[in-house]
Amino acid sequence: MSKIKSLIRKTATPANTNNPILDNIANSDAPINMTANTPIEQTRWNGWGNININKKVSAHGAKLIKSHIGKTKKLNSVSLAQVLKTVPKSRLPTAITELKTVSIDQEDRLRHARGQSFPDWIAMHGGDFEVFPDGVAFPESTADVEILLKLASEHDLIVIPFGGGTSVAGHINPQKGSRPILTVAMSKMAQLIDLDNESQIATFGAGTQGPAVEAQLDTHGYRLGHYPQSWELSTLGGWIAARSSGQQSLGYGRIEQMFAGGTLVTPQGTLNIADFPASAAGPDLREMMMGTEGRAGIFTEVKMRVQHQPEEELFKVAFMPNWEVGKEVLRQAVQKNIRLSMLRLSNAVETDAHLHLGTTPSQFLAISTYLKARGLSSDKVMLTYGVSGDKAQNKLALTEFNKLLKQQGSVTGKITDIMGSVWAHGRFKFPYLRGTLWEKGIMVDTFETATNWNHIDEQMQQMQEAVQNALADEGEEVMAFTHISHVYKQGASLYTTYFFRAAQDHASTLSRWQKIKHAASSSLANGTATISHQHGVGRDHAPYLAAEKGKLGIQVTSDMLKSLDPEQRMNPGVLIED
Amino acid sequence: MSKIKSLIRKTATPANTNNPILDNIANSDAPINMTANTPIEQTRWNGWGNININKKVSAHGAKLIKSHIGKTKKLNSVSLAQVLKTVPKSRLPTAITELKTVSIDQEDRLRHARGQSFPDWIAMHGGDFEVFPDGVAFPESTADVEILLKLASEHDLIVIPFGGGTSVAGHINPQKGSRPILTVAMSKMAQLIDLDNESQIATFGAGTQGPAVEAQLDTHGYRLGHYPQSWELSTLGGWIAARSSGQQSLGYGRIEQMFAGGTLVTPQGTLNIADFPASAAGPDLREMMMGTEGRAGIFTEVKMRVQHQPEEELFKVAFMPNWEVGKEVLRQAVQKNIRLSMLRLSNAVETDAHLHLGTTPSQFLAISTYLKARGLSSDKVMLTYGVSGDKAQNKLALTEFNKLLKQQGSVTGKITDIMGSVWAHGRFKFPYLRGTLWEKGIMVDTFETATNWNHIDEQMQQMQEAVQNALADEGEEVMAFTHISHVYKQGASLYTTYFFRAAQDHASTLSRWQKIKHAASSSLANGTATISHQHGVGRDHAPYLAAEKGKLGIQVTSDMLKSLDPEQRMNPGVLIED
Repeated sequence: MSKIKSLIRKTATPANTNNPILDNIANSDAPINMTANTPIEQTRWNGWGNININKKVSAHGAKLIKSHIGKTKKLNSVSLAQVLKTVPKSRLPTAITELKTVSIDQEDRLRHARGQSFPDWIAMHGGDFEVFPDGVAFPESTADVEILLKLASEHDLIVIPFGGGTSVAGHINPQKGSRPILTVAMSKMAQLIDLDNESQIATFGAGTQGPAVEAQLDTHGYRLGHYPQSWELSTLGGWIAARSSGQQSLGYGRIEQMFAGGTLVTPQGTLNIADFPASAAGPDLREMMMGTEGRAGIFTEVKMRVQHQPEEELFKVAFMPNWEVGKEVLRQAVQKNIRLSMLRLSNAVETDAHLHLGTTPSQFLAISTYLKARGLSSDKVMLTYGVSGDKAQNKLALTEFNKLLKQQGSVTGKITDIMGSVWAHGRFKFPYLRGTLWEKGIMVDTFETATNWNHIDEQMQQMQEAVQNALADEGEEVMAFTHISHVYKQGASLYTTYFFRAAQDHASTLSRWQKIKHAASSSLANGTATISHQHGVGRDHAPYLAAEKGKLGIQVTSDMLKSLDPEQRMNPGVLIED
Repeated sequence: MSKIKSLIRKTATPANTNNPILDNIANSDAPINMTANTPIEQTRWNGWGNININKKVSAHGAKLIKSHIGKTKKLNSVSLAQVLKTVPKSRLPTAITELKTVSIDQEDRLRHARGQSFPDWIAMHGGDFEVFPDGVAFPESTADVEILLKLASEHDLIVIPFGGGTSVAGHINPQKGSRPILTVAMSKMAQLIDLDNESQIATFGAGTQGPAVEAQLDTHGYRLGHYPQSWELSTLGGWIAARSSGQQSLGYGRIEQMFAGGTLVTPQGTLNIADFPASAAGPDLREMMMGTEGRAGIFTEVKMRVQHQPEEELFKVAFMPNWEVGKEVLRQAVQKNIRLSMLRLSNAVETDAHLHLGTTPSQFLAISTYLKARGLSSDKVMLTYGVSGDKAQNKLALTEFNKLLKQQGSVTGKITDIMGSVWAHGRFKFPYLRGTLWEKGIMVDTFETATNWNHIDEQMQQMQEAVQNALADEGEEVMAFTHISHVYKQGASLYTTYFFRAAQDHASTLSRWQKIKHAASSSLANGTATISHQHGVGRDHAPYLAAEKGKLGIQVTSDMLKSLDPEQRMNPGVLIED
């Protein structure tokens, strides 16, 4: 017991932990900027996030991964100066370049050429960007964007909207072609424009990043409540255009429930989407335009449904005997309308990996001993949950949920409560882990879907097996684990993380990734699971979209987009293949 | 006090009350059929509902209305036999008429020619149907519908989908034109086809009416929870095609939250909309097709999100000092996430009218005395609310809500609790009132919208004034009152009921209605209120749709529909004017 007490003492102070799940702000070099948009020059040009923030990984965590994928070797990385030399002359006409909103600066063009997909990382580290936008516009108003799209039509440009540049599916990558490419970066439209306290509607510039959204609302006592893992850098416009979902979607809803209306500038003119509370007047323009991923136009000002800051917010952890009972707890909780704000369940492999990655060997032993003494075996799974709201509502939700947990043999206690708090403190640092592992030659990517409860197990197995066996022809093992992070009465999301080792060069490492990606994507193309629950389609998922929409579904979506962009200059090839 | 006690005794037995709001099943000639679809031959050919059900109105209620609109005189009504003589020969080709699913019987065609809009009632009672469908198909499967649409393309027919025939906006009326018209009645597709207990998804034939939906689910312990006022006769397919909202939408959501996916047969083929719990894979096909009002195709099988029957369900009434504080209670309740399943607030005029219409003079005096003794004046408003769920969840919700009520000076007690129960028992009998009033020469119609909280008062005033003054040129007074029946964090619906007196004949009575309708619709066309919160667009609201969607919004919607119906044979003119 002394080990456990010591562990509790240590983890009680977030600054003393070192755990990718049980992470915290204090153990990084700098805190996340919580008040305003992060200037792009303060972000890594070839990886995730703020240049002042890093994230460590434990030695025995890395060892566990290597015990699966084998000994690794770091890939080479080119320098920014080397890549800058490869940026060609801009093809934009002077009518565009003379606009005060437009830059043809080489670094601006480089920094807006790629997102955060695995192929993007390979391109950035290998120095092979292939294509750069011919210029980057930084509009400050809807009128600026209207001018840009008008000139784009007159001069036959390709236009790519750019929010936080956090796409992991190839949403913002310029493609080879004869038409000059203008990327429209929304970073200067980042203000709270209007707040209707009575209707609780906040109007924002669409380029506002997560922290700036919440900081501006918080001064008025409000919260949006949308917290995707990319929250530090991703934007309102990006969330809407790619149908994002945040970690507390159970309590606050997906972006679809938050987006009330707004302004979409299209090549055919400006579409003002009215912000009614509800309407029976035909198909919903909001829902027709959400998920268009830049192919219909550019969101400039967006009206968001906000709420009062919760009186109380708690995050907790429980360990369950196995996946089956953990899943049953999630399903019953949501179907019984228990008012939690988040639910997340790691499968047994993920639970073990996270306990390794986030602990010292002695901490790991202490936790393992603690859980084993309470009857949990290697089948154990970690369940993270939260409440956000009035204290009385939270109390009832926790009472109801604890009853469910106990019925299914949960282990909870002071130590698991601390794990919950620590998870909450560090939850936006996760994406930094990719860079840390990259430096060790460990390649990591994720894959996600959503399916109904009756398909969850089958789909998880199919996804994991597809990923694990994808490099069998090279004799390479891929390590994979999965969690459920978003639950609905009808089903849940599945989020698989996988690790493989870098090959001898960038191209053959990319080839490994492509095999895995294709195997995983194909495992979804069965009509019962979506190609994306929260990342969108982009270019990477577009080949698999027809499997779920059908030929006719693709046709009607495509015709809808062509109505607003008949010359297909808006982000062509994204969402629907040309 | 003896009067009050006597009233409580009387109202405690639903059979003894006679009140349009505080109504009950017992005081009608027959109960609503609660188990299966009502055969169309058991419904009125020229009015609302089951031929065996009637609804009385109190003498002093009718007197109150007449004190506003003046002395009334009943309009003539033609007989069914007279109208049957006006049904012309069918123009359908033999390739259609020889199908076993198709009828060209004159009464079938007559009974599927009109809905329940005010112009429909004028046409049915005046005997001027104008146009009849050339035949009515009664498909029994998706394959039947596919054959029908294939033949419709080959023979260039107009096709009109028909659910319960309850449209109040002209959704199912055939129009003059050279193409023969086939109405497709979905009444034979009324079965529960599949139930996934784990994912709580029920698959139904789209022609299933409200009672048959709930009866088939109830045998398995489930509930859909969609209760529009038309519930007795309206269908799943109709609710989805016209974006319906039920009385308990606060707890169960609108039809948009219930419809998970399904099959839409279109002239371009069959669109299978996948039933994912959520997806980020592009624009949502569900939301693109909901609200298409028959212009994209015909819903045949629909997958609905269902829930366990609630452990407890209660409906209650409270009286509030005035509209302002009543509205404040509604807004705070929803914005504080108090888990009620319904909220409804009648304004002062509606409160007074309903208390008159549903009572004897002595009951009215007793209630008025009771409320006056508790400090309520003629400004008082009636607030109806409900909870549906687990007892613990309901208890918390009622505790929180009662606190809000008391803060705002509510009057509640045994008598108001009874009013709530009685409202619940009689809530689907309301549409029968139109026939009762019609027989007295009192014309009644309703008008509804939704807007944000900050526009509610202004919009209600505009709507009511527009209606009240619409017949000023004829020296006629229109009586109007309003309630809020659906609340959202962002805003609420407004539902105005109005009474005017019949003119000397059907045509001039219709002309009065047209003036009122245009005045009311124009009062909405300001971009802040929708032309319909729950009735859909049909033909009657189509001229006003552009005011809220904008020219570009209409264009993109129209192009989306044309993608599935390039020859515009599906219900042309509905939703978007030709």
